[in-house]
Amino acid sequence: MNEFEAIARFFKPLSREGAGIRTGIGDDGAVLQAPRDRELVIATDTIVSGIHFPADFPPGAVGHRALAVNLSDLVAMGADPAWYTLALALPQIRTSWLAAFARGLDGLARKAHIHLVGGDTVRSPVLTATITVVGTVPKGQALLRSGARPGDRIFVSGILGLATQGLALWQDGQRHSHRLRPFLHPEPRLPWIPILRSVARAAIDVSDGFAQDLGHLLEASQVGATVDLDRIPRDRRDPDSLKRALFGGDDYELCFTVPSARLSVFRARARRARLTFFEVGRVIPGKGICWQKSDGSPSPEIKGSGFDHFAKPEMRR
Amino acid sequence: MNEFEAIARFFKPLSREGAGIRTGIGDDGAVLQAPRDRELVIATDTIVSGIHFPADFPPGAVGHRALAVNLSDLVAMGADPAWYTLALALPQIRTSWLAAFARGLDGLARKAHIHLVGGDTVRSPVLTATITVVGTVPKGQALLRSGARPGDRIFVSGILGLATQGLALWQDGQRHSHRLRPFLHPEPRLPWIPILRSVARAAIDVSDGFAQDLGHLLEASQVGATVDLDRIPRDRRDPDSLKRALFGGDDYELCFTVPSARLSVFRARARRARLTFFEVGRVIPGKGICWQKSDGSPSPEIKGSGFDHFAKPEMRR
Repeated sequence: MNEFEAIARFFKPLSREGAGIRTGIGDDGAVLQAPRDRELVIATDTIVSGIHFPADFPPGAVGHRALAVNLSDLVAMGADPAWYTLALALPQIRTSWLAAFARGLDGLARKAHIHLVGGDTVRSPVLTATITVVGTVPKGQALLRSGARPGDRIFVSGILGLATQGLALWQDGQRHSHRLRPFLHPEPRLPWIPILRSVARAAIDVSDGFAQDLGHLLEASQVGATVDLDRIPRDRRDPDSLKRALFGGDDYELCFTVPSARLSVFRARARRARLTFFEVGRVIPGKGICWQKSDGSPSPEIKGSGFDHFAKPEMRR
Repeated sequence: MNEFEAIARFFKPLSREGAGIRTGIGDDGAVLQAPRDRELVIATDTIVSGIHFPADFPPGAVGHRALAVNLSDLVAMGADPAWYTLALALPQIRTSWLAAFARGLDGLARKAHIHLVGGDTVRSPVLTATITVVGTVPKGQALLRSGARPGDRIFVSGILGLATQGLALWQDGQRHSHRLRPFLHPEPRLPWIPILRSVARAAIDVSDGFAQDLGHLLEASQVGATVDLDRIPRDRRDPDSLKRALFGGDDYELCFTVPSARLSVFRARARRARLTFFEVGRVIPGKGICWQKSDGSPSPEIKGSGFDHFAKPEMRR
């Protein structure tokens, strides 16, 4: 099977009609009609075998992850998913691998109502998948990192550190524990999109570790924060849970701020949608994060940083 | 220097204001305003060290090439370049390498009036650059592969096979010959964009070899063609020129068809813009390419195919 046959068999079926697609896969480019009165949001993320996922990861999980990490960026921008392209570099064409990869990818694409519109399939010694996603938002409603203001409450959308815990179990040889799931199958928080857009003031997805990602949001907004360590949602059965919650990556939860005036609307809407959320701190004037304990006792010294792709010699974390 | 510092130093300066960019690099995604009454065209292409360019390629040439191969797709669609994202996977951050890469990239980006709006920089054992480009066309005017009709004349925009010739010289150890240039520095045919849009009926860029790429165009249009081998523009000093012109890749010239009724307008416009072009054949009913000689003598048997990423064990061609 060559490149063109592989595209026709596995990827062309993922390019469905509709959704503003005038011409999908199969030409030099796709022709798309953007909805009127909306802005576009575009983001791109690459995952590399042995760096962002173990080399023995199931192909369906690779396909899922490649799209999940990108969708998470759209969610954090408050953007509705529309289209995506896939650039896949792989050592060889094995039909069983490609079929499973495409299934993992398409399972999530259908859930997110996002359509494959183009791609490139090339040979490389190292399996690498780059997806570029395009979403849309009503004009002026994109949610930026820079919108946080002193007084805003800081929320996260779920338990942090579970992906890193899953990775540790995987590296330990476990293949069947349900605690692998957050690492194997990260779920971008799609149901948050309309709620964030209507009530949040700033948002970021937690991909490189909560401490680092909240830091990015605060820096962009030119504000500081107090964070209550006792309120960080984590798995308390795990002795490493605080470290993993603060510095572990790949959670793909959301961190966002809500102004006090919108708190009751926010809580009502999130509960109606059956979404979990945790208030972890407040935005304050100044710079940096002040870590605190609920009982006012001194906080342990928080050191370290999240994931930096070039800081570590081996698999991330 | 870490990932975030590298992005801030080398790539953030490439994200300029204007051109519908509400928010550029630095958030989870870019926020863009598409022009009214235009459709979007999106394409993506990956280049891998040792596969699409030699591992000892100058970094500026890698940056140039990563964008050039993508712009060539926009040209073939008749689309005006607007925005691009860059996903760069590389073994380590070396500032001199990144600075030269960014210069090569930005030199072409400025010429094409295309703006960097996002990206991802990750570690990988193999240098890999994926660019996704977005262009715009007036509604309904995107140029597809599928528009060719019997009677159309077939043109190419320049001499074919020079990139493969350049690669052979490079592999031979030459580093200073001006004949390396088509391979080191492929120029997407940007000036053709408005002319193709107004006069051509179908187009494709010649990236995998003329025979294969014309074949794709004919197949998409459900037509055949006669091609006059004596009219294929090539470097006749080179004994391998016909093979290289038909089956060599990476030329990034254009192959397009023009209906008879528009031939004089086409020639006048192309000449006014000082663009070279060569008429090489005609679209006919049926299927496949009938290779001919000007004097009616029998054509040599044309066998072989263009580049297929998985067919060959080493560097392409």
